[in-house]
Amino acid sequence: MSTFSFRVTHTDGAARRGVLTTAHGVVETPAFMPVGTQGAVKGVTHRDLESLGAEILLSNTYHLYLRPGDDLIARRGGLHRFIGWSRPILTDSGGYQVFSLAARRTIDESGAHFRSHLDGSAHLLTPEKATDIQSQLGSDVAMVLDECMAYPAERDVARTSMERTLRWARRARDRFLTLQGASGSARSSAADGVLVTNPCQAQFGIVQGSIFPELREESARRTVDIGFEAYAIGGLSVGEPIDVMHEIVGRTARCLPPDRPRYLMGTGTPDDLIEAVARGVDMFDCVLPTRNARNGQLFTSEGRINIKNAQYAEDDRPPDPACDCYTCRNFSRSYLRHLFLAGEMNAATLNTLHNLSFYLDTLRRIREAIAFGQFESFRVEYVRRRQ
Amino acid sequence: MSTFSFRVTHTDGAARRGVLTTAHGVVETPAFMPVGTQGAVKGVTHRDLESLGAEILLSNTYHLYLRPGDDLIARRGGLHRFIGWSRPILTDSGGYQVFSLAARRTIDESGAHFRSHLDGSAHLLTPEKATDIQSQLGSDVAMVLDECMAYPAERDVARTSMERTLRWARRARDRFLTLQGASGSARSSAADGVLVTNPCQAQFGIVQGSIFPELREESARRTVDIGFEAYAIGGLSVGEPIDVMHEIVGRTARCLPPDRPRYLMGTGTPDDLIEAVARGVDMFDCVLPTRNARNGQLFTSEGRINIKNAQYAEDDRPPDPACDCYTCRNFSRSYLRHLFLAGEMNAATLNTLHNLSFYLDTLRRIREAIAFGQFESFRVEYVRRRQ
Repeated sequence: MSTFSFRVTHTDGAARRGVLTTAHGVVETPAFMPVGTQGAVKGVTHRDLESLGAEILLSNTYHLYLRPGDDLIARRGGLHRFIGWSRPILTDSGGYQVFSLAARRTIDESGAHFRSHLDGSAHLLTPEKATDIQSQLGSDVAMVLDECMAYPAERDVARTSMERTLRWARRARDRFLTLQGASGSARSSAADGVLVTNPCQAQFGIVQGSIFPELREESARRTVDIGFEAYAIGGLSVGEPIDVMHEIVGRTARCLPPDRPRYLMGTGTPDDLIEAVARGVDMFDCVLPTRNARNGQLFTSEGRINIKNAQYAEDDRPPDPACDCYTCRNFSRSYLRHLFLAGEMNAATLNTLHNLSFYLDTLRRIREAIAFGQFESFRVEYVRRRQ
Repeated sequence: MSTFSFRVTHTDGAARRGVLTTAHGVVETPAFMPVGTQGAVKGVTHRDLESLGAEILLSNTYHLYLRPGDDLIARRGGLHRFIGWSRPILTDSGGYQVFSLAARRTIDESGAHFRSHLDGSAHLLTPEKATDIQSQLGSDVAMVLDECMAYPAERDVARTSMERTLRWARRARDRFLTLQGASGSARSSAADGVLVTNPCQAQFGIVQGSIFPELREESARRTVDIGFEAYAIGGLSVGEPIDVMHEIVGRTARCLPPDRPRYLMGTGTPDDLIEAVARGVDMFDCVLPTRNARNGQLFTSEGRINIKNAQYAEDDRPPDPACDCYTCRNFSRSYLRHLFLAGEMNAATLNTLHNLSFYLDTLRRIREAIAFGQFESFRVEYVRRRQ
């Protein structure tokens, strides 16, 4: 039934290069997923993303559930058809946005009660509901609903939360299997009124446990016991020190099955990505390249630059002389600064094109380095050039 | 010296097809110029414009003068190099924006005194200054500073204003010839501190005279007597009835030299363009396709649609089934409505791509119809299909 598969093609230390196959095409890993919150990556068109080499998009369940609604999207045939993106899509569970955006949220064993940030309407997001919504969206990868903990957390609070996340994962998996079973061999079918728009959807479990290695290890083991197509590392990049994050990523990744992709959620800077790849991570998403672009911050091979700074007013160089993207081939820092200060939308577009190009190109170089057994020297050289 | 030239290749009634040649390439006429106010067309990249077939951009002198400043742009080598657009550019004189945007403006014989809408700083825009700024910008076509009159205007007020516009035109032309003469055969040189960044720049005179045919005819005759590379019809699309505009356009165009392009400023709807072409106009600019796109209004072969209307919530058709643009080939009204309501920048981008495609394609079809001697039947069919 499921066409979801993953194959490691090269290893170099703990770093892996691989190919993820979904019903909507393949994704070379390690992969970076641009974030298209509401079914579009802000400032760039799908064709721009394709020409940048983006092979998979992340979209946010919370936003799409509230507007335009997963029912409407299911009636359109699912998210791919609705947004006109034919390559793979991963959807999150909606949990993170409930925690960060929604009003008056309360969590109990059933799920997360909250009010919409758009109109104040009351909603309940349960593990089953998050699964149903994503089933209607028909993403290639759905995520289980997990409890997102604040940092820092006491060990017993972290354990209690981890245990709840495990119970939710069990419920989400049961619901997922019911929906997929009901979908049979038909392209879509109704199960309790839920339209399964992608019978080949995979579901990833999420490892929690804050910064406590033994909780992470237990969470990993028990999540794997439930059994998902693959596993994510959640609850990091929430304020903990960078070296703690790297340490936890490394210890958690080692506890996950080597034949399944590992997805580090919501991370991070290019340096973070390289460090996580070095510890065996295969997939990433982050708003940094897109959000920072809209704020005028550009990632370059020589570090970050803030294009609004006066020093760029008459700087005729491209943002990154080492970059081959549309923005760097055609536009100067001087022009980009002008567009930013003038409040032109094109500033966001050109900056986003560059930052995404920088991220996707970095991943491309990572994959190449792994294939040639040169990842460690790539990593050392990368860090050196930016110091 | 000047490589500026114009050749009529076909006529069909009063309608003409031709080729405008500038130092930055050729423009097939009748031509529509997308408006890139601050050196960028809002929401679309230069490469998008090129792939849509835009052959010439309009940019606003008022905005560029205030920010980032024509001195800075001249130091970059001129507007083409600064904004990374290698095809022809026409700049307006800045007068219209002074009248519509600036604060505390007063007009006297010297020019227009005003305060910047950005920082309140005081400025004086004279015919000479408008010429100097555009010389520094180095556009392929510069416009003379004219007095923009409100509608309606009494005949004697219109005459007084027209006379002033003629005196200003003389001053602008004198200044232009001085600058071009001083530029010699070098790529650029200083004249009173003005950098002539495009020695092949042409300058267009502007016919005024409100809605009074005899004033228009006199303005045309006396503007032609001063002698410019070509002539524009200004002061229309300012609130006068449509049929009056068409009548004035027709009477004015007949008074202009047949071997020079005729530019109708700031107009208009696709229907307006067709009617003006029928009366001998060759060039157009208008913010309608771009501004309306950002407000959710799409021009289609079946009339305009407002994408935010509830009726499009589950409409899987493209905006215009007869259109071949990127937006119409890939996206539904339902998705475009979602993007618009969600406040996504991509709504502006996709709508703008479509509207500009619609305008540029309409002009392409006009040119074809003229070449085949079928313009009148094209015009009749165009009007019929939209009723």
